[in-house]
Amino acid sequence: MTKPKPDGSNGEGPAAFNPLPEWLRNEGEAADVVLSSRVRLARNLAGHLFIVKATRKDRQRTLEVCRDTILHCSLAPHIAWYDLHAANPADRTLLVERHLISKQLAKGRAGGPGAAEDPRAVAIGLPDERLSIMVNEEDHLRIQTVRSGLSLAAAWKEIDAVDDRIEAGLEYAFSPRFGYLTACPTNVGTGLRMSVMLHLPGLRLTGDIDKVKRAAADMGLAVRGFYGEGSDAVGDLYQLSNQTTLGKSEASILHDMEHEIVPRIVEYERLSRRELITRRRVGVEDQVMRAWGLLTHARLLTTDEAMGALSLARLGILTGILKATGGAAIDVRTVNQLILLVQPAHLQRVVGRELDQEQRRVARATFVRGRVCTAS
Amino acid sequence: MTKPKPDGSNGEGPAAFNPLPEWLRNEGEAADVVLSSRVRLARNLAGHLFIVKATRKDRQRTLEVCRDTILHCSLAPHIAWYDLHAANPADRTLLVERHLISKQLAKGRAGGPGAAEDPRAVAIGLPDERLSIMVNEEDHLRIQTVRSGLSLAAAWKEIDAVDDRIEAGLEYAFSPRFGYLTACPTNVGTGLRMSVMLHLPGLRLTGDIDKVKRAAADMGLAVRGFYGEGSDAVGDLYQLSNQTTLGKSEASILHDMEHEIVPRIVEYERLSRRELITRRRVGVEDQVMRAWGLLTHARLLTTDEAMGALSLARLGILTGILKATGGAAIDVRTVNQLILLVQPAHLQRVVGRELDQEQRRVARATFVRGRVCTAS
Repeated sequence: MTKPKPDGSNGEGPAAFNPLPEWLRNEGEAADVVLSSRVRLARNLAGHLFIVKATRKDRQRTLEVCRDTILHCSLAPHIAWYDLHAANPADRTLLVERHLISKQLAKGRAGGPGAAEDPRAVAIGLPDERLSIMVNEEDHLRIQTVRSGLSLAAAWKEIDAVDDRIEAGLEYAFSPRFGYLTACPTNVGTGLRMSVMLHLPGLRLTGDIDKVKRAAADMGLAVRGFYGEGSDAVGDLYQLSNQTTLGKSEASILHDMEHEIVPRIVEYERLSRRELITRRRVGVEDQVMRAWGLLTHARLLTTDEAMGALSLARLGILTGILKATGGAAIDVRTVNQLILLVQPAHLQRVVGRELDQEQRRVARATFVRGRVCTAS
Repeated sequence: MTKPKPDGSNGEGPAAFNPLPEWLRNEGEAADVVLSSRVRLARNLAGHLFIVKATRKDRQRTLEVCRDTILHCSLAPHIAWYDLHAANPADRTLLVERHLISKQLAKGRAGGPGAAEDPRAVAIGLPDERLSIMVNEEDHLRIQTVRSGLSLAAAWKEIDAVDDRIEAGLEYAFSPRFGYLTACPTNVGTGLRMSVMLHLPGLRLTGDIDKVKRAAADMGLAVRGFYGEGSDAVGDLYQLSNQTTLGKSEASILHDMEHEIVPRIVEYERLSRRELITRRRVGVEDQVMRAWGLLTHARLLTTDEAMGALSLARLGILTGILKATGGAAIDVRTVNQLILLVQPAHLQRVVGRELDQEQRRVARATFVRGRVCTAS
């Protein structure tokens, strides 16, 4: 992925990526709680077999058709195209860590024999990485836009325009009765999934996080960790997304998420933070300052430890604890950025070479210390 | 204990005590590993019933006889006398924390009804607290001398002189066949127990501490925690003492401890520390610096947490890690002193008022931070 590829990659390496992609900019509505808002559409091409039924040759053809359209319909200031079957594993992991592709797409189809060579790609809108389009994941196209803060309407507006431009060049599989047809029935209809990445350290510390999870489940929402299905909520980061797409209009899904459900969780988290700093001040100061002590002193850090401590540092900044106690002058953006840069593939990119797990723990601690100690 | 007592206390309050008693001065042979050396003699008065058989009136009489002798035979530059039945609980705990009296003496006989009023006392040699004499503990007299570092011979010489002076004024229970008679058969004979307080963080970190414990047990030595029987080895501090007193001469016990057993453990601990800083440097740096981060950042500290972190700080200073990594310029004496001052009764003495457990955790963190942050 470091050089232009004869197979069609247009040569942008992840090294050229923005150090602070859109979803970590800490801007927009309720950015104290909502890191980012994401909208994705699942689309398939008419006249092409669904991925699960397609041969490798079929998938190669699908990929080529998609590439021709995506690269020539002005979707962003610049579109970087990566053939993932030609990419090295570290670069694929880097893209997963940036939330630009799914783990499934990184691995290739079902992770079976020859999965890594399965024809598949991602197109990314640069420089802000707001747009990414996975080709030959579960569906032929998985189009995603992301915005900082609570901004589902804007993300929806953007993806809707992208969707129209692509549809002008490709024919989607569509049924007048069911809507957009997708590989998995849960996506049929609008093919839409909206999600927000929430930072909920307050609710975790007050012990109310489980109530929120149960309430979300009752409303038909999925609550996942930072890296989606099956990942734990390390760093107090939770992805909240709608589950059903059939029988509900885009507008209704959008309205429920943006104006009803998420604002209620945001208020609940803010209330928890206020309660913590008024009624349980010493306890939360202790947690925040211990985390700060760890970030500034540890010589070995696992990813989860680093994310846990960064979460508390973020809480400390947003509640004024970290400044008030003379801990440090560090900003939320730096913390957000570190949440990404402590991930294994990013860390190796920063260091400039491959590292085993033990070396990563050393490098992570050194890197974090360098950033937060300069900041303080 | 703050004013002269009509009952015979001579009015020295623990507040007047030395901030750094002898056993924490970090002086003498092998002070990097051996905090202190202690020798104690168990003695009983002829013509007085053993404590377990004595009535309260008997014990009151024993106490008075002992006091008259102890206060008038020039045992130290100054002898402070405390009637523990007249002392408040906080002062009794303070004396336990300073290792001047046993928990058993603090509680009174078997902790039963009226135990607190049981006639019992301690005489302490000031200003260095090298000498202490418990009256009406398990035996009528438990005489103890303590020295910094590995210094059993000097402690023995000192206690032998004290013993002679007391014996000049009192008749001890002595059998030509068994030697000095004591309440518990394990003390019969010399009535002597020698012990050293060891700081063994290296052996704990290399995982070899259990080998040392087993070897010590095989040699008939008892290994106990910082506060004696039943206390855990918090702060990596271990008391090592001889178990049998019958059938072995003082000289033989002393020689074994001072010239054979303890030096071997000292070498083993030093070897572990060298191994840690050469072969497992990053790991031990990580431990030490995390501990330092905790001491300088936590807002709540339990006694055990504080002692654990102070132990690692002590290791960090002695191995050069704490200075080498720019952590802090703090000396071993300050750390030794903090090991004592973070104990509950000492902490309350420092703060100047009674505190509940939660308040103590706050006060402990604040106090420690003040000391180590000034030092750095």
